[in-house]
Amino acid sequence: MAESSTLNATVTPIDGGITAAKGFTSAALHSGIKVKTGALDLTVIASEKPVATAGLFTLNLVQAAPVILSKEHLERSSGLSRAIVVNSGCANACTGTQGFADAKTMVGEVATSLGCPVEQVLVASTGVIGVNLNMSKVAPGIRAAVSQLARGKGSETARAIMTTDPFPKECAVRVETAAGSFIVGGTAKGSGMIEPNMATMIGLLTTDAQVSPTVLRRALEESARDTFNAITVDGECSTNDTLFAMASGASGVVIDEGNYQALLEGLLTVSRQLAVDIVRGGEGATKVIRITVENARSGDDARQVARTIANSPLVKTAVHGADPNWGRIVAAAGRSGVKFDPNQATVHVGGVRLFENGLPHDDKAPLAAEHMKGTDVDIHVDLGTGGGSKAVIWTCDLSAEYVRINGEYRT
Amino acid sequence: MAESSTLNATVTPIDGGITAAKGFTSAALHSGIKVKTGALDLTVIASEKPVATAGLFTLNLVQAAPVILSKEHLERSSGLSRAIVVNSGCANACTGTQGFADAKTMVGEVATSLGCPVEQVLVASTGVIGVNLNMSKVAPGIRAAVSQLARGKGSETARAIMTTDPFPKECAVRVETAAGSFIVGGTAKGSGMIEPNMATMIGLLTTDAQVSPTVLRRALEESARDTFNAITVDGECSTNDTLFAMASGASGVVIDEGNYQALLEGLLTVSRQLAVDIVRGGEGATKVIRITVENARSGDDARQVARTIANSPLVKTAVHGADPNWGRIVAAAGRSGVKFDPNQATVHVGGVRLFENGLPHDDKAPLAAEHMKGTDVDIHVDLGTGGGSKAVIWTCDLSAEYVRINGEYRT
Repeated sequence: MAESSTLNATVTPIDGGITAAKGFTSAALHSGIKVKTGALDLTVIASEKPVATAGLFTLNLVQAAPVILSKEHLERSSGLSRAIVVNSGCANACTGTQGFADAKTMVGEVATSLGCPVEQVLVASTGVIGVNLNMSKVAPGIRAAVSQLARGKGSETARAIMTTDPFPKECAVRVETAAGSFIVGGTAKGSGMIEPNMATMIGLLTTDAQVSPTVLRRALEESARDTFNAITVDGECSTNDTLFAMASGASGVVIDEGNYQALLEGLLTVSRQLAVDIVRGGEGATKVIRITVENARSGDDARQVARTIANSPLVKTAVHGADPNWGRIVAAAGRSGVKFDPNQATVHVGGVRLFENGLPHDDKAPLAAEHMKGTDVDIHVDLGTGGGSKAVIWTCDLSAEYVRINGEYRT
Repeated sequence: MAESSTLNATVTPIDGGITAAKGFTSAALHSGIKVKTGALDLTVIASEKPVATAGLFTLNLVQAAPVILSKEHLERSSGLSRAIVVNSGCANACTGTQGFADAKTMVGEVATSLGCPVEQVLVASTGVIGVNLNMSKVAPGIRAAVSQLARGKGSETARAIMTTDPFPKECAVRVETAAGSFIVGGTAKGSGMIEPNMATMIGLLTTDAQVSPTVLRRALEESARDTFNAITVDGECSTNDTLFAMASGASGVVIDEGNYQALLEGLLTVSRQLAVDIVRGGEGATKVIRITVENARSGDDARQVARTIANSPLVKTAVHGADPNWGRIVAAAGRSGVKFDPNQATVHVGGVRLFENGLPHDDKAPLAAEHMKGTDVDIHVDLGTGGGSKAVIWTCDLSAEYVRINGEYRT
């Protein structure tokens, strides 16, 4: 997480989401991709003019057509975009040349309606893999959405990007600095995969701070590392994961070296809430687990240990059963590939010391078990290497419901 | 798997297990580590004289006392051992200096009873982590076991190393070569973790072939790579994993370059059956999944892709539900870190082609679903890189029963 020592800014939560920042409008509607009548499945987010935009995408080798096209457009437009179009219900992944043509048609419809070059439009899709979009429904849907763009429709956008997420996710903050105040807001969707073959995470952020595409990208990367890239539901990186940030500049607050930290803190605050909400809404999740690893030799080491613990099915099932099973935590850290001396390490669960000097403190397990019966579980590992690096990863427990959701017979 | 093209030997299954090979005796009894009256929890395997012995151990940084001691003894004895003592019910892991002293007492009791140097005795433990052995029960148990050593008690040894494995695992083969015939036999225990905090895999192999410790170690490493190291139940590498092989030489068949392949094939055949049986008895498992990855640039690449698919909770739950969800297989391969072109890759399930040229063949999914309703599921991925490397990994499905077993409240 960001050091707030150099932060000369106040971050305050406010109402709203993706259109909380000045200069952005959105619209959402039911185009017919989702079968359920009236279910929102299409949204457009637009700015009044081309604005600084950054994108982060899945590292999966198998990338959906909208991911490939958006990367290309961000490059061609030098990070200046007018709009993002997102559909849910169909991931447009593993759809071949037809899928790529469909993604092009989607951005083309937005560009024509807005009267801007196609490369100023980005696209993201989420839903079933291996199925083509029904463009006879999507294309007119896009034209209708652009005609309805307005402020104050952020919560509709938050619902339109959901697949089987149990709840919509949006969040906004006001950042007050010496140079004035600006807003950061956003929305995200996660990992409700009740309908199999879904492709997952989409995050959309806006701000009315004034910032160059290069600095916006740097801030987005830095904030995503400790938020969207610090969560895991089941260790599966999808074909469609996409995170966009747009900066309108409408607040008049210019981001320079002096208040870069203020922008970063705004992005971090919004992203952290959205990311943890994705975990809370994870498939079959009943608990959010916060895993902190301290005193590692490097940040990468700390993240690797935290991630190995977070993806351990034995740890996740133990948390599900409120079992303070420190042995599984120690064993997961031990197989993470990071060098440390187990005899110097300590493990706390809910602030209760369970392992130290290579030996258990099982007498305190009932106290830790009490903590684990809640919905937010805290696991803390001190690697005792003498290095000062730290990482935090959020995950959820592994429940029988996860198996049910993902094992349901599809064909 | 081994190329059989250069193999001038016939491998035939025979009855028996760890004492099928000439020159080995064993005994097993209830010492009192396990609470259940009469449950076998201690076994000693002995040879008549010091014989070539090789060991492979967990790569987990957190290693149980018996693992550390056995590694030390193999080095000090230059790979010449008389006996192995194994207990179940207690892993003697995370037990500090007392645990190391207890492991030393265990080998000391065997050495005194047999009249051999301590470094000629190896030890393995499996069971609960973080609990000390009750040496007032274990020590007399060991003395009694040594006094009862005999041929034909292999199946008792197979039962004595079980924790909550659903069935004992043993296997033996006769290898006939131009130089005569020899026997390879063994036993193993796996991953029944109904009692939480277990530390898992133990494999014990014997042969009456005559081979040096160095060549035995090479053959053990080579055979384990494609058998014991090619299985995964839940991606968790334990603190106690141990594989031992002893070679008595009692058959008189000398292993040289000419019949190294015969020894290897014997070890492979026995190890493969034991390893796949561990998967079949995996926690909550209802199906064994065989994942073959072909046409990779290297064996490491092939193994990495196969392992990523094998550990994917989405693939494992899909198999549990008999859902031929090729999208999850493709996405797992894509995030494995291995470079390949998805448009050149193909995916077959049960011999049915589901993905090719970047596009699905969902019309054939019902055929694949039929195959997946059985207990043995075949997943085949051709990476299409032009490289000729291949790997096979076995895993099991992920069921709600796995969550129940590992989520049961311990304290």
